[in-house]
Amino acid sequence: MKRRHFVGGLAAAATLSGCAKETANCADGGASQETFEWSCVTSWPPRFPGLGMAPENLAERVEAASAGRLKIKVYGGGEIVPAFEVFDAVSRGTVEMGHGASYYHKGKVDAAQFFTSIPFGMTNLELNGWLYYGGGMELWRELYEPFNLVPIPTGNTGVQMGGWFNKEINSVDDLKGLKMRIPGLGGEVLRRAGGTPVTLPGAEIFTALQTGSIDATEWVGPYNDASFGLHKAARYYYYPGWQEPGPGLETIIHKAAWESLPSDLQALLTTTCQAITADMAAEYTHGNATSLRQLKEDKNIEIRPFPAEVIALLRSIAADVVNELMATDPAAEKIGRAYFDYLRLASETSRISEKAYLDSREF
Amino acid sequence: MKRRHFVGGLAAAATLSGCAKETANCADGGASQETFEWSCVTSWPPRFPGLGMAPENLAERVEAASAGRLKIKVYGGGEIVPAFEVFDAVSRGTVEMGHGASYYHKGKVDAAQFFTSIPFGMTNLELNGWLYYGGGMELWRELYEPFNLVPIPTGNTGVQMGGWFNKEINSVDDLKGLKMRIPGLGGEVLRRAGGTPVTLPGAEIFTALQTGSIDATEWVGPYNDASFGLHKAARYYYYPGWQEPGPGLETIIHKAAWESLPSDLQALLTTTCQAITADMAAEYTHGNATSLRQLKEDKNIEIRPFPAEVIALLRSIAADVVNELMATDPAAEKIGRAYFDYLRLASETSRISEKAYLDSREF
Repeated sequence: MKRRHFVGGLAAAATLSGCAKETANCADGGASQETFEWSCVTSWPPRFPGLGMAPENLAERVEAASAGRLKIKVYGGGEIVPAFEVFDAVSRGTVEMGHGASYYHKGKVDAAQFFTSIPFGMTNLELNGWLYYGGGMELWRELYEPFNLVPIPTGNTGVQMGGWFNKEINSVDDLKGLKMRIPGLGGEVLRRAGGTPVTLPGAEIFTALQTGSIDATEWVGPYNDASFGLHKAARYYYYPGWQEPGPGLETIIHKAAWESLPSDLQALLTTTCQAITADMAAEYTHGNATSLRQLKEDKNIEIRPFPAEVIALLRSIAADVVNELMATDPAAEKIGRAYFDYLRLASETSRISEKAYLDSREF
Repeated sequence: MKRRHFVGGLAAAATLSGCAKETANCADGGASQETFEWSCVTSWPPRFPGLGMAPENLAERVEAASAGRLKIKVYGGGEIVPAFEVFDAVSRGTVEMGHGASYYHKGKVDAAQFFTSIPFGMTNLELNGWLYYGGGMELWRELYEPFNLVPIPTGNTGVQMGGWFNKEINSVDDLKGLKMRIPGLGGEVLRRAGGTPVTLPGAEIFTALQTGSIDATEWVGPYNDASFGLHKAARYYYYPGWQEPGPGLETIIHKAAWESLPSDLQALLTTTCQAITADMAAEYTHGNATSLRQLKEDKNIEIRPFPAEVIALLRSIAADVVNELMATDPAAEKIGRAYFDYLRLASETSRISEKAYLDSREF
């Protein structure tokens, strides 16, 4: 049986092997027996809890549900492609597939940031309402089309934490001069509030915080933060994660690789990615809950809300920052408008459902 | 090619047809070509938005991703099996599969109610954390084992609404004598608060409300309530849906049918059910948001929160009601304890993530 190896350049569209043809005649509307071996590069440390497990789980499930017809080998960031070059590698066709976050592509496709998370933007449930039923996916596919990429939403971390701080934040003045690891739009918001945003890869955060070269850092939430040991390098754990309230992750597939799949494997891949969205949310819900309880037992840690005036300032600046992003190019304008229309729509319901219910449950 | 028809009694395990064997030899670790035709009975009106679309979407996706090897024909409630006899029909093996809600089985398996929703219980995200990562599924499988049923979580409506009322609820006194369509544990809570709970099938709610034979009704949320026209029969729309804060739906499969599937189709079915969980949440997020906005434009409607004292009373009674349920049998005790341990654990995180974030976004 002919297998398709994609790495090392795009193969010309392979014809079905004789065996696959024979199978097609033999089967009564059944699956083609052609097999595919794909590589998936990622932006995550190998098997990193949550983020890195998503592509592993995806690969395992697709292989099981396809009886081995689609095998995906997952690579951690830097193993064959640097963590932040996933987009380019898949776009060029060096590999068939990647898993990461669309906001890593700013500078190349600024508008892609709306599909991950925006400060004070959509939650997990709201984002998926937009993507799957509110027109979001059509915009996303259109945005990636010129890069020969097919995007499929795959996972969501849920609401993150505000971060670990070695300085108390009691007022907006405490943001002034604050040196914090916080990338992207959130970092720009901090800068305008008087702080100094720093971009550091995950692996360097702990040392930077412990040595005092930064005063604070955001990462993800209790599940991932605890695995980095951040609670051993900072005292104050602030919430909520206004900067990333429900980041959606992405699978990207090179267009020619996607089109080489028979329709049943395309359907399987799409469905499995959506299953991973539910599964990652469950993993984070569980991991965050168990990690938070452990952190609460540590007497050296204080878990605190940001003061209301700090949230109000950050929210106001965030609106300016996102408006400026939307002014950068027509795609950001178009996608940003659709995003905010949907956020306004969905937040009216979140207010009387999720929020009102969680308020009613407080005891 | 031999197809398995399950309806009318369990077929003895079929041997692979000659063709399938030939395919198996031909394929390089590929899928068996045996095909299956299943029937899925449901508790929903055919293609009812959200609830009824879930099994339809499931069937369509499984057929597409299996290249037609597993075909599932979906039946609305009452088409071949009454809406509330899905459990018995699948348990007996009359059909292979069903879709509904586990709390419909109270009286047969009281403990099953914990896997749908409990008044003031878990949200969608919390329930899925418990089921997939916190040990919930093991308890559920164990509970259904004596009935020859394999349960798979499939969908969640999210936080519901408190319901439509033709009387204002300004204090706990207004619950006294209130005749409301509200089934299950929520109904028992209302009864103890002085009201008269009524159980009515969905199709009869509108007329009962319009003619004044009931004062109030809960149903689902804006998406489904508007499709029943309930806003034309009542003035006040109260929130939040304390009685059903994130009901999870179920697929149930007869054990022999499950075991007759090759492992790739088992994996496909499990994965597709989880995808439907994410998909239904997105459908409800979108449907509720668009329906709520339309309802807000109707000057004959007032959308209101329950007064705090009403919520406090209902919450207190709900704890008693659920404690009594747990005292009914050892399974309810065991599953109830696990449920509440997890609710306490997960709610600590929900408080500083979802809730704190939604609070911070208010403007």
